[in-house]
Formats: sequence, C-alpha cells, structure tokens
Amino acid sequence: MKVNINGETKTILAVWYEDNQVKLIDQRKIPEKIEIYSAKNSDDIYYAIKNMVVRGAPAIGVTAAYGLAMCSKNKEDMDEAVKKISSSRPTAFDLFKAIKYMQENKFLESSARRYALEITERSKKMGEYGNELIKSNDKILTHCNAGALAVVDWGTALAPMRIAHNEGKKIFVYVDETRPRLQGAKLTAWELQQEGIDYSIIADNAAGYFMKKKDIDLAIVGADRIASNGDFANKIGTYEKAVLAKVNNIPFYVAAPGSTFDFSLKSGDEIPIEERDEEEVLSVNNKRLGPEGSHAKNPAFDVTPKEYVTAFITEYGIFKPSELNNLHKMIQNDLFMR
Amino acid sequence: MKVNINGETKTILAVWYEDNQVKLIDQRKIPEKIEIYSAKNSDDIYYAIKNMVVRGAPAIGVTAAYGLAMCSKNKEDMDEAVKKISSSRPTAFDLFKAIKYMQENKFLESSARRYALEITERSKKMGEYGNELIKSNDKILTHCNAGALAVVDWGTALAPMRIAHNEGKKIFVYVDETRPRLQGAKLTAWELQQEGIDYSIIADNAAGYFMKKKDIDLAIVGADRIASNGDFANKIGTYEKAVLAKVNNIPFYVAAPGSTFDFSLKSGDEIPIEERDEEEVLSVNNKRLGPEGSHAKNPAFDVTPKEYVTAFITEYGIFKPSELNNLHKMIQNDLFMR
Repeated sequence: MKVNINGETKTILAVWYEDNQVKLIDQRKIPEKIEIYSAKNSDDIYYAIKNMVVRGAPAIGVTAAYGLAMCSKNKEDMDEAVKKISSSRPTAFDLFKAIKYMQENKFLESSARRYALEITERSKKMGEYGNELIKSNDKILTHCNAGALAVVDWGTALAPMRIAHNEGKKIFVYVDETRPRLQGAKLTAWELQQEGIDYSIIADNAAGYFMKKKDIDLAIVGADRIASNGDFANKIGTYEKAVLAKVNNIPFYVAAPGSTFDFSLKSGDEIPIEERDEEEVLSVNNKRLGPEGSHAKNPAFDVTPKEYVTAFITEYGIFKPSELNNLHKMIQNDLFMR
Repeated sequence: MKVNINGETKTILAVWYEDNQVKLIDQRKIPEKIEIYSAKNSDDIYYAIKNMVVRGAPAIGVTAAYGLAMCSKNKEDMDEAVKKISSSRPTAFDLFKAIKYMQENKFLESSARRYALEITERSKKMGEYGNELIKSNDKILTHCNAGALAVVDWGTALAPMRIAHNEGKKIFVYVDETRPRLQGAKLTAWELQQEGIDYSIIADNAAGYFMKKKDIDLAIVGADRIASNGDFANKIGTYEKAVLAKVNNIPFYVAAPGSTFDFSLKSGDEIPIEERDEEEVLSVNNKRLGPEGSHAKNPAFDVTPKEYVTAFITEYGIFKPSELNNLHKMIQNDLFMR
C-alpha cells in the first residue's frame, strides 16, 4: 500500500517478517502516526491480535502464520504457542485457517512467507474481479476497514476500489466511521487519503439516509467468517447496513478470500461472536462520553443472513450465496486452501 | 425531572423563565456538569437553539416562546426577533408552532408560561398513554434524547418509561449512543441514571444485533416533525433503527405532542433536513478522529416513512399512521393547538 512518510510516498505492508520478528503497523496509532510493533515471541503475537495492534481477518491470519514460524525457530513449546494464539480472538476464521496451515507445514518460515504471499496475491485477484462491478462515477459505501491494513496489501473490500481508481474510474467512497473503535474514520479514511481516492466520513447512523436518497450505488464490505450457507460475520453494524441496502435495492457485496470461508459451519448461528470491553463504547481517545457509572454492551461483530448478500467477491470469481457449493469445490481443488 | 446535585435529589426543569431571562440547562455540558445558560435577548436565544445549548423539538418550542415574551418586554423589534429565532434551526416543527402561538397571543409572558405548562402536562399525558404499551421486564430501545431535557419535563419517548418505572414495572433501556453528538450516551444515559432506570449504552451499530437476537421488545423514539401521512423526521439514524425493527417484527413507536405534527405537509419529502458542521463527525470532545484533511457529511436528521411506524404516542392517545386524520380533527378542536 502507498504511504506518505515525511512527504515521500513509500510502499509498505501491514505485516511482514524481518530479523526473526513479526513486524506490524500499529493500527491503534493510525492516523496520528506510523509506528511499527515488533513481536518477538508468542506472548507478543497474542497481545497484538487481542489488543488489535493488528486487525482484519486476513491480516490476523498472516500474523499468526509468521508468529508460529518465529516461535518454532525460537524453540517455544509449539502446543502452548498454538493454544495461546488460537485463543486471541474467536470470530475471524483466517486465524484458525492460518494455524492449521502452519501445523500441516511444520511451522516453517518458508510456509509462513508463502501464506502471506498467497493472501496478498489473492487480494489483488479479488480486487480485479470486484473492479468489474464498479462503474465510473459510482458512489460506494464501506464499513469498518477492509483495506490493505486488514490484509497485508490491497485489502478485501478496498481492493476493488484501489484497482478501479488505478484504472482511472472516478469513484467516491462513503466511509462509515464504525463505532466503537472507529476503524472507518481512522484506518479506511487514512488508506483512501494515501491512495488519492475521494471519500467522506459519515456517522454510522447516516448510511441509511444516503442509501434512501439514492446517493449510494453499491456497498462493499469485508468479512471475518463466512458459513457454508452464505451467512457471514463482520464488524458490528454490517447487518444494519446490509438490511438497509436491501430495502433500498442497493447491491451489497462481501469481499473475502477463500481463507475466510468456514464450510464446516452450516449457518451463521454457529459463528462465535466476541464481546469486547465496554470501555470501547464508553470512551473515545480515553475521554469518557457517558455519565460515570454507566455500562455498555459491546458485541464486536454481527452476523448478516445470506439473503442480504448480493454476491461474494473472491479470488476465484464472484459467487451468489446460492452458488457457494461451486466455490467450495474450487477451494477443495486448491492445493493452498485445502 | 429528578437531578442529583451534590448528593441531594432536586426536581428541576430543562427550560424556565426567571428574572426576565430564559434559563436553560446547558445540554452541551451534561453529563460532566450542570450549568445554567441565561438568555437575555434574541441573540442569546438564537445562539442557544442553533448551538444546541437546548435541543429537542418541544424544548426548542418552549425556549422560543419564553424568548419572544422576553424580547417583547425588552422592547426588541419583534419582526426582527421572530425572523432571527425562526432561522435558528429548520427541522423541528415545534419552533414554528411556538412562534405562531406567541404571535397570536401578543408575545405575552403569561402565554409563554401557558405554552410551557401545556407542553409539560401533555408530555405527562403522553407518558401515561405510552405506559400502557410497556409490560414489566420489557427491554426498550431508544435513540437520541427524547427525555425531559428535550421537553421541559417528562420527555416524549422517555415519558412512558419514567411512568412505567414509577409504577414499579421492571424495564431495561438500550440507549443508542447517537453519533455524531452522542445525545444518547450523554443525555439519555444521564436522565435514566438520575431516575434509577436500568440501561446500557450501545454503539448505534449494535442496535440491529440486539434486535435480531430478540433482546429488544419494543422501540420508542421522539420526533422533530411529523407530516400528515405519518412520515416523520427525527435524529439521524432513526430511519435505520425503524427499518431494522420492522424486519425483526419489533413494534416501533414515535412519541410526540400535537405541536410536532405539521399537517400542512403531505409527506416527509417536504421536511427540510438540516446539514450541520462536519466537525461534529470528525471530532469527539475536541479530539480529532480521522486523518487531517478528511471531510465528513453530517445530516442532522433523517425521514422515516410511515410504513415503519407502529403507532404515534400523543397526548390525545395512540394513533396508527392510517389514523392520523382522527388526530388531526382532535388537534383542530383543541383550543391550545389551533
């Protein structure tokens, strides 16, 4: 992804492996500053995922893959390392996919590098397929951050927008700010600004207003886990926007690599939903919003039923929820994904 | 409304008239502190409404009524005063209703006092009707602040909850934080806390999640203006929550006094929607959220079509959107409302 550092445009990744450390752009610091978090052991990896130094399903997967390679080199107890990293966050399927991949590949550094490279190239491919759905002058809604930061590069939902923009299509992005953690206002806005893509931040409450005004042509979001029937988990609020898109006849696309599909689950009812600390709702930038003594409920994800999904944008092409059987076969025939 | 000041429970109003000044609880300072704003002329009234020292359609109406009585006593140019106060905010109908009432009643202080008293008593009546819709153990969703602060006392959407609670019904309120200005987290949470009503603040994004989980039994919101067909304007995000309530078969009620109904409008398409400063979205507590150079769009209200309204809770009783003709006749026969 392009990043402007001290007036110079550089290309960097959200996650990489260097000097036997897993390096992460500390996403808690964006957009204020670009700071690199260096994970040196399984505790650091657990901390980084749990506390959202790194977030976004594919980026969590890559972090776990590099992390396990590092732990193995450092001769950590690998059963312990796997157990610890598995327990860092419950919802994103990529985490479990990456752990399984590394177990099957003896925790080799070369395998972690392959995993990261596959995820990156597949994101670009996804972007190329998704780009076909975008016309010039389209106004696109997105929720949370499903950008390069959430993958390694390119992004999931933002990959089609990056490619459309690079091809010279004029697009405008409505960025849901995405309370409570504001990944839209902080991360997606930052990525779009770096790429020179036109956007406005909106309160999550305003997405319906702009849909009803026909000011939004399509919506593209990411996913944290997708069940075999097409129900999917994504950042809290996704379900709201999907329902509003349907009521307003706006196509609603979910962009995700094969590694986010969990075909072992029949439906979204089986996806575990993480509840996070109430302080994420009660405060912004460490400043309290509501009265002292107030409590909040803070589900981090919601599940959107398949009937609200127009299609899934994947590296294998575009699939309606009713076509996921075909995708399942393609994934089963994909050596990397098996 | 009950307010705890230095450990002592007092009963105060959101707006009152004293020493030839209009006194307002400064709602920008709640919940951090209780500070009284004293308006001494039409400029102060304009400032207080425009900058949301006072907000909530009925409270804006009462502020305008007292304000015009004060301006008249002070021998201000009343054409100018009316023009200035009319232009303070465009969406809430109570503002225009109150101005008309004061014009017809020669801007008398006694008329302003009557206006305030009527609005207060009508809120209580509305609460009594609304209370009939609430069962013990109900979990109720509300959006923004439609409490005593938004009226003078009792509230609109919160009046039924206050009365249900006072009658000993056990209720739980889901409080949408209501970005961008957070009137839910700041004002509604504060009012419920003062009354001892059980509640949790949630991100606006989470309302759909709890509705889908069947954790919400009914929703009650206020309104800023209601057209004759039942379409209504209210705080941005209300439309989203109303659509989600319908999809999840949850009754969605709108509590508003007769003064909020604008029977001159055929539908919600004719309601003017205020666009406010983008800084309300880009910052919280003066701390910037997104990257420097970002822009935001900030519609303050949205219009919810009548098909999403289960019924209107008014001081005349409870009316389905299809029954608003009957309400119109009752309002026409109501000397205060004509």
